[in-house]
Amino acid sequence: MESSEKTPLLVTPQDFNFGPGEENALLLDCGRKLYEVNLRYETYGTLSDKGDNAILILHALTGDAHVAGKHTPQDRKPGWWDEMVGPGKFIDTDKYFVICSNVLGGCSGSTGPRSADPATGELYNLDFPVITIADMVRAQKRLVEHLGIKKLLAAVGGSMGGMQALEWGKLFPDMVKSVIAIATTSQLGSQSIAFNWVGSQAIRSDAEFKNGNYAVNPEHGLATARMLAHITYLSDESMSRKFGRNLQDTDSYSFAHRRDFAVESYLEHQGQRFVERFDANSYLYITRATDYYDLADGGALADALKPMKSDLLIVSFSSDWLFTTAQSEAIVKAALANNLNCSFCEIESSYGHDAFLLEVDRLGSLISDFLRNQQEDFQ
Amino acid sequence: MESSEKTPLLVTPQDFNFGPGEENALLLDCGRKLYEVNLRYETYGTLSDKGDNAILILHALTGDAHVAGKHTPQDRKPGWWDEMVGPGKFIDTDKYFVICSNVLGGCSGSTGPRSADPATGELYNLDFPVITIADMVRAQKRLVEHLGIKKLLAAVGGSMGGMQALEWGKLFPDMVKSVIAIATTSQLGSQSIAFNWVGSQAIRSDAEFKNGNYAVNPEHGLATARMLAHITYLSDESMSRKFGRNLQDTDSYSFAHRRDFAVESYLEHQGQRFVERFDANSYLYITRATDYYDLADGGALADALKPMKSDLLIVSFSSDWLFTTAQSEAIVKAALANNLNCSFCEIESSYGHDAFLLEVDRLGSLISDFLRNQQEDFQ
Repeated sequence: MESSEKTPLLVTPQDFNFGPGEENALLLDCGRKLYEVNLRYETYGTLSDKGDNAILILHALTGDAHVAGKHTPQDRKPGWWDEMVGPGKFIDTDKYFVICSNVLGGCSGSTGPRSADPATGELYNLDFPVITIADMVRAQKRLVEHLGIKKLLAAVGGSMGGMQALEWGKLFPDMVKSVIAIATTSQLGSQSIAFNWVGSQAIRSDAEFKNGNYAVNPEHGLATARMLAHITYLSDESMSRKFGRNLQDTDSYSFAHRRDFAVESYLEHQGQRFVERFDANSYLYITRATDYYDLADGGALADALKPMKSDLLIVSFSSDWLFTTAQSEAIVKAALANNLNCSFCEIESSYGHDAFLLEVDRLGSLISDFLRNQQEDFQ
Repeated sequence: MESSEKTPLLVTPQDFNFGPGEENALLLDCGRKLYEVNLRYETYGTLSDKGDNAILILHALTGDAHVAGKHTPQDRKPGWWDEMVGPGKFIDTDKYFVICSNVLGGCSGSTGPRSADPATGELYNLDFPVITIADMVRAQKRLVEHLGIKKLLAAVGGSMGGMQALEWGKLFPDMVKSVIAIATTSQLGSQSIAFNWVGSQAIRSDAEFKNGNYAVNPEHGLATARMLAHITYLSDESMSRKFGRNLQDTDSYSFAHRRDFAVESYLEHQGQRFVERFDANSYLYITRATDYYDLADGGALADALKPMKSDLLIVSFSSDWLFTTAQSEAIVKAALANNLNCSFCEIESSYGHDAFLLEVDRLGSLISDFLRNQQEDFQ
């Protein structure tokens, strides 16, 4: 990795526009069609002549296409999974051709609620159709075909990225050799739906929201939603260890109406950073897609996975209370019931759900071994 | 209990005003004084000649003085712990003299941020001093003395009521024979402080809040805060069992921007009911009091409990993830380190934190046995 420290991996974002007209429209689960869809994406490495080394990385709720490297040498920070992806890294871009696109409904270059409706020239806002994880995956399939890839070596993702990876295996079984689903679930339980609902209400009750037709991002509500979600990404243990009841900027309680505790300042900071980079309408649409997501299609998960052919690597983290090990195990059981090759690992970690971004070494070893085996077996 | 079904226990709320002037002012932890403090309270049963049967019940975050019975026979619902308290019930008002007061800072008759400042005649709003659990307890002590009680048989409470009960034992060891602390903690951890912070931000970002000087309760923000808190009162298991991914009013997803899931409708309903009965400023003050609460005073809990003389009954619930069994056990250990008589029971329950209001039979048996023993031993 020394070389990549000296010369940062540079990557240029690209756009794939589906093109105009009915023939290029994307039919959605809700029954509506989206026209002239754009996907912002990045690629790393080179597609092999055999076409056996393409890996699609799927980002989580508020991620984007910029998974690794920098856009310019002056960038302050690299992509969101730079420790995992790059030359000589666990997902080795000297070996693999890596693709990552911003999801449909996103706000980082792909078509979403803050895009202009080509029919009117106006921003969609809440007229944007309600999308699903499957819609995101169908859009990604167009991109993968556009890039000349017949079959992915792997679809890889954590959290909402894992939902997309699993959906890839279910919808396009012949196009994906393997699925790596990390810290994810086959469906949200009522507690997670409830947290999303509260977050959405915080956004909607912001006076600046204006039913989605805001000129300026409704920052208060969006920050509140983010702070709430952020709590669910951490474990009680990691929060206690990091913050406990430590005070911020004061030796004793202020007895004023302001932040006293370090954890409050931390959350505020997380909320503020988030609203600078993320759009409120996108947040509503993407969290709704996770609410709607049900790999089991309302029935038995083992039945829903019957079409699946991919080998699977399922990884959970012991302190993740958002998407628990039990939820990963339910996927494993359904896969095994269908005689799929399925590896499963629960990684001991105190980091909660965020562990999928933090436990890079342990997670990376699992992934790199799995990918090597998958490529040997590719056909 | 048949008799109480036929003839409902009737109770009349009373007010105790500390009276005007410096000599009656209540000195608070923040250093400020409150003048002409009023406590709204209710009593049930009769104080014995020996004065050995007085029980002070402390209510939780959003409770009030109306613990049992009805104010008029036409009342739709009785007090909040009516299954526990009344003639022939677990806390038997044929035997015990029961007192419950609305906390200082509350919005159900006691002095709080929506009271008028006697110095100006204006509502305090956010000029109300930031209060603590100890301030609430010091105000209650005045009431207990006013009622001619030298020593309580017990101080009993769940959740924030348990914090007050423990604080009673610490601050006034000679005035309380026993402490019954249910589903509570000696201090909030950072996760709970974080949830409170997000709730407070939801209230503050409501356009109607107007920095506390609202004419109309800022319902959106307050409902959002309540919905969030409500999730922490339930267990993942009880939510899954009650709601799962059930849809409300629809056979399939609406693909519209509205409630689809039963758990969303349930939360909305909880939020709406709450804003009809609770004030936003009070909510901010009382949750802050729980954040500040630290029975250990920033040090070792065993050291802080040295003054305590009361016998203790500590009860936790297995699925309570807001105030966990481990947090109750920390109190038990500190009590035992001080050679206090301390009984502890973890009740198996799937109801989460709310179990302290729902597991009446199992909790009630523990309490009634404990109280009987305490009275035999009273001196």
